[in-house]
Amino acid sequence: MTEHSLWRFSRALHRAINERQYDDLEAVIDDDVDWAVYGPIDMFPFLGARRGKEAVLDVVKRIADSVRVHRFDREKVMLGAESAASMMRYSLTALDSNKPISLRLAHFAQFKDGRLSHIRVLVDTFDLVEQVLGRPIHLPRMAS
Amino acid sequence: MTEHSLWRFSRALHRAINERQYDDLEAVIDDDVDWAVYGPIDMFPFLGARRGKEAVLDVVKRIADSVRVHRFDREKVMLGAESAASMMRYSLTALDSNKPISLRLAHFAQFKDGRLSHIRVLVDTFDLVEQVLGRPIHLPRMAS
Repeated sequence: MTEHSLWRFSRALHRAINERQYDDLEAVIDDDVDWAVYGPIDMFPFLGARRGKEAVLDVVKRIADSVRVHRFDREKVMLGAESAASMMRYSLTALDSNKPISLRLAHFAQFKDGRLSHIRVLVDTFDLVEQVLGRPIHLPRMAS
Repeated sequence: MTEHSLWRFSRALHRAINERQYDDLEAVIDDDVDWAVYGPIDMFPFLGARRGKEAVLDVVKRIADSVRVHRFDREKVMLGAESAASMMRYSLTALDSNKPISLRLAHFAQFKDGRLSHIRVLVDTFDLVEQVLGRPIHLPRMAS
Protein backbone atom coordinates (compact mmCIF):
# COMPACT_ATOMS: atom_id res chain seq x y z
CA MET A 1 0.00 0.00 0.00
CA THR A 2 1.39 3.38 -0.95
CA GLU A 3 1.75 5.98 1.74
CA HIS A 4 -0.82 8.78 1.49
CA SER A 5 0.57 12.05 0.13
CA LEU A 6 -0.55 13.80 3.32
CA TRP A 7 2.07 12.03 5.43
CA ARG A 8 4.87 12.85 3.05
CA PHE A 9 3.78 16.48 2.84
CA SER A 10 3.44 16.71 6.62
CA ARG A 11 6.95 15.36 7.26
CA ALA A 12 8.43 17.65 4.61
CA LEU A 13 6.65 20.71 6.01
CA HIS A 14 7.76 20.08 9.58
CA ARG A 15 11.30 19.38 8.44
CA ALA A 16 11.26 22.67 6.54
CA ILE A 17 10.02 24.62 9.56
CA ASN A 18 12.21 23.02 12.22
CA GLU A 19 15.39 22.17 10.30
CA ARG A 20 15.17 24.70 7.48
CA GLN A 21 15.66 21.89 5.00
CA TYR A 22 13.44 22.70 2.04
CA ASP A 23 14.36 20.04 -0.52
CA ASP A 24 11.77 17.49 0.67
CA LEU A 25 9.10 20.16 0.72
CA GLU A 26 10.02 21.39 -2.73
CA ALA A 27 9.53 17.84 -4.03
CA VAL A 28 5.97 17.53 -2.72
CA ILE A 29 4.56 20.88 -3.87
CA ASP A 30 2.95 21.32 -7.27
CA ASP A 31 4.44 24.14 -9.37
CA ASP A 32 1.07 25.83 -9.56
CA VAL A 33 -0.04 25.24 -5.96
CA ASP A 34 -2.96 27.32 -4.68
CA TRP A 35 -2.33 28.05 -0.97
CA ALA A 36 -4.27 30.07 1.59
CA VAL A 37 -4.12 30.35 5.38
CA TYR A 38 -6.96 32.50 6.69
CA GLY A 39 -6.05 34.92 9.47
CA PRO A 40 -5.00 38.47 10.37
CA ILE A 41 -2.24 39.12 7.85
CA ASP A 42 -1.53 42.56 9.33
CA MET A 43 -0.20 40.84 12.42
CA PHE A 44 1.19 37.72 10.74
CA PRO A 45 2.40 38.54 7.23
CA PHE A 46 3.05 34.87 6.56
CA LEU A 47 -0.68 34.18 6.62
CA GLY A 48 -2.83 34.81 3.56
CA ALA A 49 -2.84 33.53 -0.01
CA ARG A 50 0.10 32.42 -2.13
CA ARG A 51 0.22 31.04 -5.66
CA GLY A 52 2.96 28.83 -7.08
CA LYS A 53 5.77 26.80 -5.57
CA GLU A 54 8.21 29.71 -5.25
CA ALA A 55 5.77 31.81 -3.26
CA VAL A 56 4.86 28.90 -0.99
CA LEU A 57 8.49 27.97 -0.28
CA ASP A 58 9.13 31.62 0.50
CA VAL A 59 6.26 31.82 2.96
CA VAL A 60 7.29 28.58 4.66
CA LYS A 61 10.75 30.12 5.12
CA ARG A 62 9.11 33.07 6.83
CA ILE A 63 7.18 30.71 9.07
CA ALA A 64 10.44 28.90 9.85
CA ASP A 65 11.96 32.27 10.83
CA SER A 66 9.09 32.90 13.24
CA VAL A 67 8.25 29.64 14.99
CA ARG A 68 9.49 26.21 15.87
CA VAL A 69 7.15 23.21 16.12
CA HIS A 70 7.41 21.38 19.44
CA ARG A 71 4.67 18.88 18.87
CA PHE A 72 1.43 18.41 17.06
CA ASP A 73 -1.55 16.15 17.56
CA ARG A 74 -3.69 15.29 14.59
CA GLU A 75 -7.02 15.21 16.41
CA LYS A 76 -9.06 14.40 13.31
CA VAL A 77 -8.15 13.23 9.86
CA MET A 78 -10.06 12.26 6.74
CA LEU A 79 -8.28 10.85 3.72
CA GLY A 80 -9.51 10.62 0.15
CA ALA A 81 -7.68 9.27 -2.87
CA GLU A 82 -5.90 12.57 -3.53
CA SER A 83 -7.32 14.70 -0.76
CA ALA A 84 -7.05 15.05 3.00
CA ALA A 85 -8.53 17.10 5.81
CA SER A 86 -7.23 17.32 9.37
CA MET A 87 -7.85 19.15 12.59
CA MET A 88 -4.58 19.63 14.40
CA ARG A 89 -3.30 21.05 17.64
CA TYR A 90 0.19 22.55 17.57
CA SER A 91 2.59 23.48 20.34
CA LEU A 92 4.98 26.09 18.95
CA THR A 93 7.66 28.42 20.20
CA ALA A 94 7.77 31.99 18.89
CA LEU A 95 11.44 32.46 18.03
CA ASP A 96 11.57 36.20 18.70
CA SER A 97 10.13 36.07 22.21
CA ASN A 98 10.86 32.41 23.03
CA LYS A 99 7.25 32.17 24.18
CA PRO A 100 5.14 29.03 23.82
CA ILE A 101 2.13 29.24 21.54
CA SER A 102 -0.52 26.59 21.17
CA LEU A 103 -2.99 26.71 18.34
CA ARG A 104 -5.60 24.63 16.65
CA LEU A 105 -6.06 24.57 12.90
CA ALA A 106 -8.03 22.75 10.24
CA HIS A 107 -6.78 22.16 6.73
CA PHE A 108 -8.29 20.83 3.51
CA ALA A 109 -5.68 19.70 1.03
CA GLN A 110 -5.74 18.42 -2.53
CA PHE A 111 -2.90 16.52 -4.16
CA LYS A 112 -2.03 15.96 -7.82
CA ASP A 113 0.43 13.16 -8.66
CA GLY A 114 1.44 13.10 -5.00
CA ARG A 115 2.13 16.83 -4.83
CA LEU A 116 0.17 19.45 -2.93
CA SER A 117 -1.92 21.38 -5.45
CA HIS A 118 -4.48 23.19 -3.28
CA ILE A 119 -4.76 23.89 0.43
CA ARG A 120 -6.98 25.97 2.68
CA VAL A 121 -6.12 26.38 6.35
CA LEU A 122 -8.30 27.82 9.07
CA VAL A 123 -6.64 28.80 12.37
CA ASP A 124 -8.23 29.49 15.73
CA THR A 125 -6.98 33.03 15.24
CA PHE A 126 -8.45 34.86 18.20
CA ASP A 127 -6.81 32.51 20.65
CA LEU A 128 -3.56 32.87 18.71
CA VAL A 129 -3.67 36.67 18.73
CA GLU A 130 -4.19 36.77 22.49
CA GLN A 131 -1.26 34.43 23.08
CA VAL A 132 1.08 36.43 20.87
CA LEU A 133 -0.05 39.72 22.42
CA GLY A 134 0.56 38.11 25.81
CA ARG A 135 -2.67 39.52 27.22
CA PRO A 136 -6.38 38.92 26.84
CA ILE A 137 -8.36 41.24 24.59
CA HIS A 138 -11.31 42.57 26.53
CA LEU A 139 -14.55 41.41 24.95
CA PRO A 140 -18.09 42.45 25.71
CA ARG A 141 -20.56 39.64 26.24
CA MET A 142 -22.76 39.47 23.15
CA ALA A 143 -25.51 37.05 24.16
CA SER A 144 -26.82 35.38 27.27
CA MET B 1 -28.12 5.48 -2.85
CA THR B 2 -28.88 6.72 0.64
CA GLU B 3 -28.38 10.37 1.40
CA HIS B 4 -25.34 11.06 3.57
CA SER B 5 -26.17 11.91 7.18
CA LEU B 6 -24.35 15.23 6.77
CA TRP B 7 -27.01 16.63 4.46
CA ARG B 8 -29.84 15.65 6.75
CA PHE B 9 -28.04 17.12 9.76
CA SER B 10 -27.22 20.31 7.86
CA ARG B 11 -30.82 20.88 6.78
CA ALA B 12 -32.10 20.18 10.29
CA LEU B 13 -29.57 22.55 11.87
CA HIS B 14 -30.37 25.41 9.53
CA ARG B 15 -34.09 24.86 9.96
CA ALA B 16 -33.58 24.98 13.73
CA ILE B 17 -31.61 28.22 13.57
CA ASN B 18 -33.76 30.05 11.05
CA GLU B 19 -37.25 28.71 11.76
CA ARG B 20 -36.82 27.62 15.38
CA GLN B 21 -38.18 24.22 14.42
CA TYR B 22 -36.21 21.72 16.46
CA ASP B 23 -37.96 18.40 15.74
CA ASP B 24 -35.84 17.52 12.68
CA LEU B 25 -32.67 18.38 14.58
CA GLU B 26 -33.71 16.33 17.58
CA ALA B 27 -34.14 13.32 15.28
CA VAL B 28 -30.60 13.50 13.91
CA ILE B 29 -28.65 13.96 17.15
CA ASP B 30 -27.40 11.03 19.18
CA ASP B 31 -28.50 11.05 22.83
CA ASP B 32 -24.90 11.06 23.98
CA VAL B 33 -23.51 13.51 21.38
CA ASP B 34 -20.09 15.02 22.07
CA TRP B 35 -20.12 18.61 20.74
CA ALA B 36 -17.52 21.38 20.80
CA VAL B 37 -17.17 24.70 18.99
CA TYR B 38 -13.80 26.29 19.72
CA GLY B 39 -13.85 30.04 20.32
CA PRO B 40 -14.01 32.84 22.90
CA ILE B 41 -16.86 31.67 25.14
CA ASP B 42 -16.63 34.84 27.27
CA MET B 43 -17.93 36.80 24.30
CA PHE B 44 -20.13 34.09 22.79
CA PRO B 45 -21.55 31.86 25.52
CA PHE B 46 -23.03 29.52 22.92
CA LEU B 47 -19.55 28.43 21.88
CA GLY B 48 -17.70 25.76 23.83
CA ALA B 49 -18.36 22.14 24.72
CA ARG B 50 -21.70 20.42 25.27
CA ARG B 51 -22.51 16.81 26.07
CA GLY B 52 -25.80 15.06 25.32
CA LYS B 53 -28.78 15.87 23.13
CA GLU B 54 -30.50 18.15 25.65
CA ALA B 55 -27.46 20.36 26.03
CA VAL B 56 -26.94 20.56 22.28
CA LEU B 57 -30.56 21.44 21.54
CA ASP B 58 -30.34 24.10 24.23
CA VAL B 59 -27.21 25.64 22.72
CA VAL B 60 -28.70 25.61 19.22
CA LYS B 61 -31.68 27.52 20.64
CA ARG B 62 -29.27 30.11 21.98
CA ILE B 63 -27.63 30.34 18.57
CA ALA B 64 -31.09 30.77 17.01
CA ASP B 65 -31.73 33.61 19.47
CA SER B 66 -28.53 35.34 18.35
CA VAL B 67 -28.22 34.93 14.59
CA ARG B 68 -30.03 34.16 11.40
CA VAL B 69 -28.37 32.33 8.51
CA HIS B 70 -28.61 34.20 5.20
CA ARG B 71 -26.56 31.87 3.13
CA PHE B 72 -23.72 29.43 3.36
CA ASP B 73 -21.24 28.05 0.86
CA ARG B 74 -19.68 24.69 1.52
CA GLU B 75 -16.25 25.46 0.08
CA LYS B 76 -14.80 22.03 0.85
CA VAL B 77 -16.34 18.76 1.86
CA MET B 78 -15.04 15.27 2.53
CA LEU B 79 -17.41 12.41 3.22
CA GLY B 80 -16.67 9.06 4.84
CA ALA B 81 -19.10 6.23 5.55
CA GLU B 82 -20.20 7.77 8.86
CA SER B 83 -18.06 10.87 8.95
CA ALA B 84 -17.81 14.23 7.24
CA ALA B 85 -15.62 17.31 7.24
CA SER B 86 -16.42 20.66 5.63
CA MET B 87 -15.06 24.14 5.33
CA MET B 88 -17.94 26.60 5.12
CA ARG B 89 -18.50 30.28 4.69
CA TYR B 90 -21.58 31.75 6.37
CA SER B 91 -23.39 35.03 5.91
CA LEU B 92 -25.32 35.71 9.10
CA THR B 93 -27.28 38.52 10.67
CA ALA B 94 -26.79 39.28 14.35
CA LEU B 95 -30.34 39.59 15.64
CA ASP B 96 -29.61 42.10 18.40
CA SER B 97 -27.82 44.65 16.20
CA ASN B 98 -29.21 43.60 12.81
CA LYS B 99 -25.62 43.66 11.54
CA PRO B 100 -24.28 41.30 8.90
CA ILE B 101 -21.56 38.88 9.98
CA SER B 102 -19.61 36.65 7.67
CA LEU B 103 -17.53 33.85 9.05
CA ARG B 104 -15.63 30.82 7.93
CA LEU B 105 -15.63 27.58 9.88
CA ALA B 106 -14.41 24.01 9.60
CA HIS B 107 -16.15 21.05 11.15
CA PHE B 108 -15.33 17.37 11.61
CA ALA B 109 -18.39 15.27 12.33
CA GLN B 110 -19.01 11.64 13.20
CA PHE B 111 -22.37 9.92 12.84
CA LYS B 112 -23.76 6.78 14.47
CA ASP B 113 -26.80 5.15 12.87
CA GLY B 114 -27.37 8.37 10.93
CA ARG B 115 -27.26 10.59 14.03
CA LEU B 116 -24.57 13.09 14.94
CA SER B 117 -22.44 11.55 17.69
CA HIS B 118 -19.32 13.74 17.71
CA ILE B 119 -18.47 17.13 16.24
CA ARG B 120 -15.62 19.59 16.51
CA VAL B 121 -15.95 23.04 14.94
CA LEU B 122 -13.21 25.59 14.40
CA VAL B 123 -14.23 29.18 13.61
CA ASP B 124 -12.15 32.01 12.17
CA THR B 125 -12.68 33.68 15.52
CA PHE B 126 -10.51 36.77 15.25
CA ASP B 127 -12.33 37.95 12.17
CA LEU B 128 -15.62 37.20 13.89
CA VAL B 129 -14.71 39.16 17.01
CA GLU B 130 -13.75 42.22 14.99
CA GLN B 131 -17.02 42.14 13.08
CA VAL B 132 -19.11 41.84 16.21
CA LEU B 133 -17.14 44.57 17.97
CA GLY B 134 -17.68 46.68 14.86
CA ARG B 135 -14.08 47.90 14.87
CA PRO B 136 -10.66 46.48 14.15
CA ILE B 137 -8.51 45.38 17.08
CA HIS B 138 -5.13 47.06 16.78
CA LEU B 139 -2.43 44.47 16.30
CA PRO B 140 1.33 44.87 16.32
CA ARG B 141 3.17 43.37 13.41
CA MET B 142 4.91 40.22 14.69
CA ALA B 143 7.18 39.21 11.83
CA SER B 144 8.46 40.60 8.56
